[in-house]
Amino acid sequence: WKLLDKFRLAVVQLQVTRVKADNLSRARRLVKEAADEGSKVVLLPECFNSPYGTSFFPTYAERIPGESTQMLSEAAKESGVYLVGGSIPEEDGGKLYNSCVVFGPDGGMILKHRKIHLFDINIPGKICFQESETLSPGNSLSMFDTPYCKVGVGICYDMRFAELAQLYSRSGCQLLVYPGAFNMTTGPAHWELLQRARALDNQVFVATASPARDETASYVAWGHSTVVNPWGEVISKAGAEETIIYANIDLQHLADVRQQIPITSQRRSDLYSVASVQAGSG
Amino acid sequence: WKLLDKFRLAVVQLQVTRVKADNLSRARRLVKEAADEGSKVVLLPECFNSPYGTSFFPTYAERIPGESTQMLSEAAKESGVYLVGGSIPEEDGGKLYNSCVVFGPDGGMILKHRKIHLFDINIPGKICFQESETLSPGNSLSMFDTPYCKVGVGICYDMRFAELAQLYSRSGCQLLVYPGAFNMTTGPAHWELLQRARALDNQVFVATASPARDETASYVAWGHSTVVNPWGEVISKAGAEETIIYANIDLQHLADVRQQIPITSQRRSDLYSVASVQAGSG
Repeated sequence: WKLLDKFRLAVVQLQVTRVKADNLSRARRLVKEAADEGSKVVLLPECFNSPYGTSFFPTYAERIPGESTQMLSEAAKESGVYLVGGSIPEEDGGKLYNSCVVFGPDGGMILKHRKIHLFDINIPGKICFQESETLSPGNSLSMFDTPYCKVGVGICYDMRFAELAQLYSRSGCQLLVYPGAFNMTTGPAHWELLQRARALDNQVFVATASPARDETASYVAWGHSTVVNPWGEVISKAGAEETIIYANIDLQHLADVRQQIPITSQRRSDLYSVASVQAGSG
Repeated sequence: WKLLDKFRLAVVQLQVTRVKADNLSRARRLVKEAADEGSKVVLLPECFNSPYGTSFFPTYAERIPGESTQMLSEAAKESGVYLVGGSIPEEDGGKLYNSCVVFGPDGGMILKHRKIHLFDINIPGKICFQESETLSPGNSLSMFDTPYCKVGVGICYDMRFAELAQLYSRSGCQLLVYPGAFNMTTGPAHWELLQRARALDNQVFVATASPARDETASYVAWGHSTVVNPWGEVISKAGAEETIIYANIDLQHLADVRQQIPITSQRRSDLYSVASVQAGSG
């Protein structure tokens, strides 16, 4: 295999508490631990510096750059990794966003993805959550390059929208990452299914990073951070507790799958298309 | 619930043999049995009148109308059902197609879908199959109306292409049917996953009809005909043997799911689109 055809990916399933400083310091320590284990790309969970909840977002929100992204920059640099910084509540111009910031091994900011599909659902007796009560949506797709492959970024509910993954993979992404915090209703029902669907339909690797489960929180995250390969198989999966999971991302495997079942070249572009409507700025 | 909000769907997992007359007579009997059990829509498997294999297609191919579709018309009429006639090898103008013909309760032909994505795969040591050696592809999407809901039709490998299901559901289909014959490699790996993905991503019902497994055949079908609801749950599933499975299609459930997790209205059509490129004729 070629030098850059394989790399180690780590997903940090952080236990998020109400103490921001503690969230930041443990995240930093776990990123370092993941890098010490040979990881080149490290993924943190959605809302890793704050409890997940509309009442918490205004309190924990920061401008970018700010305290949390400063930590991410330093962690990426000291560990020499591509760090997908989960997400944090971002304040900008009086509005709040759910934003994922990515840093390179030199500590430089590469990308900011603002969640483009806000999580507004209402399953009576199970879960009602309306991110749009406090958050505004982003308006851009978000991809970044690494020496290994191109990576597409979505946040949690973004994963339900197949078009985003289709556009990312058509644009050359071979890995899709979704920091996300599904709950105790949608988690068991849909978390793994959505990841396997995105992976199989687009023949890409998919990685998700959830906060660890906290049964005492107002919003209880499902946990079970996962990595899926282009054949649609789960190759690494966390339990509910704080942990780091690892996966060896083998891009030759991806190439093999695409050769064996060549849907990428068999698509009927004479009959249908998936297209980006604009390249707005979020 | 409203009168037409629920109906019974039947999937006939036929044991296909080399004796065409026997395939036709058993199919007809099983359609009658499904109707006697209250089914309003009945689905037959891919290639139900012929063994599945490129060497068989020319021998078993028929023009439409022909012997097999005549039987389907009569079966639909005598049973008073919408009959999705799986598929048969069709001959037309010197070319062969893998075609699904649908008949209404009055015996009239409603629709013909020619498989638009030919099954050409090569998984070394597992399965190599090249439909395109003998078949030509269709060039049209295919939907039909019933008093219950609109239905979108694909055949087997068509199911791997998410765009088809996206266009069907955006066009108002609430049920997608895929006669299909996955094999002993792709069956366990992808058959159920693809159905659940189509169902969940589009919040529609999905039904598949496979031939029963025949271990002595040159191509061994996986079986496991399945019905999935818009929540992504398997609600009915066959084993490997000849059988009829039933599912109560509750369109109020579909409406509830779409209200609870309203991805249908939350899609960012300002950022991306899935579009039909043409309405050709197959």
